Parts: sequence; structure tokens; C-alpha cells
Amino acid sequence: MCRVTVGTQKGGAMSGLRDERTRQSRELILSAAAELFAEQGYQQTSLVDVADRSGVSRGSIPWHFGDKQGLLTAVVERVYEEASSSRDAAPLRPGPEGAFDIVHMATRVVRNQTARLTLALLIEAGKPDSPIHDSFVKLHDNFRAHVSEWARRPEIASRLPEGISPDAVAVMVFGTVIGVNQQWNLSPDRVDLTEAYEVLTRMLLSLIGEREMAPVPR
Amino acid sequence: MCRVTVGTQKGGAMSGLRDERTRQSRELILSAAAELFAEQGYQQTSLVDVADRSGVSRGSIPWHFGDKQGLLTAVVERVYEEASSSRDAAPLRPGPEGAFDIVHMATRVVRNQTARLTLALLIEAGKPDSPIHDSFVKLHDNFRAHVSEWARRPEIASRLPEGISPDAVAVMVFGTVIGVNQQWNLSPDRVDLTEAYEVLTRMLLSLIGEREMAPVPR
Repeated sequence: MCRVTVGTQKGGAMSGLRDERTRQSRELILSAAAELFAEQGYQQTSLVDVADRSGVSRGSIPWHFGDKQGLLTAVVERVYEEASSSRDAAPLRPGPEGAFDIVHMATRVVRNQTARLTLALLIEAGKPDSPIHDSFVKLHDNFRAHVSEWARRPEIASRLPEGISPDAVAVMVFGTVIGVNQQWNLSPDRVDLTEAYEVLTRMLLSLIGEREMAPVPR
Repeated sequence: MCRVTVGTQKGGAMSGLRDERTRQSRELILSAAAELFAEQGYQQTSLVDVADRSGVSRGSIPWHFGDKQGLLTAVVERVYEEASSSRDAAPLRPGPEGAFDIVHMATRVVRNQTARLTLALLIEAGKPDSPIHDSFVKLHDNFRAHVSEWARRPEIASRLPEGISPDAVAVMVFGTVIGVNQQWNLSPDRVDLTEAYEVLTRMLLSLIGEREMAPVPR
């Protein structure tokens, strides 16, 4: 976005090398910023911190991302892309087996560093005038759409209790993922993640009348 | 804690009046701080902001609470006390009816201002060296204990699927409350709170084999 063409044309090989270096610097800055935002929040992190952690000079950060706000937006966009691609890599199985896939996906999301980052940024995003508000709304919509798509299939929707919509199931499942993660983040010694997600699976299955179903791993 | 006796003894009536004024100032400061922390977070709030909002002079805040950290601790303690007292005011009914009480309690917690405050402070609390880490662990333990107490009663525990403990049910239910609240806080127009909590009730009841149970209001 802030990138401009500088210097003279040196031909294909040289400009390819320059592009590769630019891409690498960009990645180093993004990874360092994601780590720092996760560890200490957005407010507390300075561009000097990001430069120190990434090994890229402080002066080059604006060239890649504009200001700190631009960097934040780029970090959130990367989270969004990663979440979308891991989603597509593992489509949910139709039918009750999909409940195991949903919980498997949730467990993977929770255990990686992204979960801590999104948690740290969620408060920031909650303010309607926040620069990342819209990206976060999109991120949440995306997760919910994935679950409600599954719950909307006839073989599931027809088994939901009366008055329970696929969208409400999605809000509830995604809520569990957020909330269980936060309890675990606060006091890991008091929350058994594996067991909590086992309850989510059992609840989802019970809701559609599959109370006794044995696990069906992929 | 920081309060010291000042001035001369003026007898019962005068010191009673002084105590009352002290209590009032303390309450005004606490309410203003709770509002400001909820709106803009702890980091962003200064004692000058708190003085402006409360109408109590900036200079008197340390007399009541020491420093900003002491004020934060007092705010969290008040949340804890309020949560405990509202809990005791409405004990959960034993048996499946308790599922309706749990969700009723959750809905009440979510809709008041306290929910936004605890959300804003949760990130702060997540750092192990945070001054409010321990209060938040206590707050979470308290909510979970309330639910797991219900789930541990023989008429519920005996109906839980094999391998599902009352503690895991509590983590899951409390997680839903946190996570549904946060989705709603981020995009209130995309999350139907009433419906989400209806799903939680249905899931809890389905888990213990009460799939078709009609609502049993108190």
C-alpha cells in the first residue's frame, strides 16, 4: 500500500531479489508485531519494540505499513487469512460427524499463538471507532458461517429442537471456543481444555439427538 | 486500607456524618472508575479522568485507594462481591430446572455494565504478574463452582454422558457466557443474545437426556 518504486530498473533477476527481500522483511515485521501484540497488547507496543524483535530497522517499518495502525491492520488481516485457509483445508463432514470436526478445528485454533493474539486485540476491536473493528467482525462472521453452514444442512437442521436456528448454534459454539480459551489463558491449571471440548462435542451431538455416538475421527 | 483517623473527636453524630461522606466519596470514585475502565480500559484511564467523572477531587483518591492499582483492585473486588451476592440471591434449583436458572443468571450478568467491565479487564488480568490476576481467578472459580455444584448433585451427575465431569460442564457453560458476550459486544447487530442462550439451555438439557423439556420458569 505504501510501497513505491525506487531506484533504477536493474532487470528481472535483481528486481526479483529485491522483491524477495521486501517480502522477507515484511514477514519478519508482521511476525514480531503479532508476538508483541499477543504478549503485551497493542497499546503497550512501540514500533521500536517491533524493530528490535524483528531485526528490521525502525525506519523501514512505515515504508511497509504506514503507521502503527497500518501494522495492526496488516497483522489482523494475516490472522484472517490464516484462519480462512486452515478452515478450507479441513471442510466439515456433513452429518453428526461434523461435530467432531468443529471441535477439532476449535482445539487447533485455541492451542496456537493466534488465539492469544486475537484475545489481546479483541478489546481494542470492541470499540466501534477502532481501526480493527471491521476486520474482527469479518473474522467472527467467518467462523460462525462455517459452523452454521454445517448446522443448516437438512440432516442436521431437521434434528435441531424447535426454535433453535443454525445461526444461534454457531454463536453458541464460537462463544464456547472464545470463552473456554479465555478461562484457560487466565488460569491454565484450573481448566482442562481437552475435557471442556469433549463436553462441547457431547452437547452438540445431544442437541441433535445423538447422545451415545462414539467418536468418529477423520 | 489507606484511611487514617484525622482531626479531633467530635462525638457520635459528627463522626457518623463524616463516615457517611467518606463512604459516599468512595462509592462515587468506584462507580466512575468502573465506568471508565469499561469504556476505555485500565491503561488509558488516568486518576484525573476518574476525578472528573466522579466529581471527587483528584487529591483525595489516594487517601481512599492508594494508587491507580489499588483503585483497580477495589473495582474488581466490588465486581466479585456483586457477583457473589446476586448468586446467593438466586440459588439454582436442583434437577433439570437448574439449567433454566443457570441461563437466567448468565443472561442477567451479560446484560449489565459489569459484563463490559470484566471483559475490558480480562486481558489485563491474563498476565500472571498483573495486580488483578488473583482476583480474576477467584471470580472465575466462583462462577464455575456455582455451576459444578449443580452438576454434581446425584440427579444430574448420574445423567451426564460417560467421561463428562461436573467441572468440565462448568468450564463449558461459563465459557459460553464469556464468549457469547464478547461476540455480542463486538457486533450486537449480528448476535441474538436471547437465541444464543436458548441454545445453551437446550444443550445443557439435551446433555442430561432432557431433550424435550418445556421451560420451567421460577
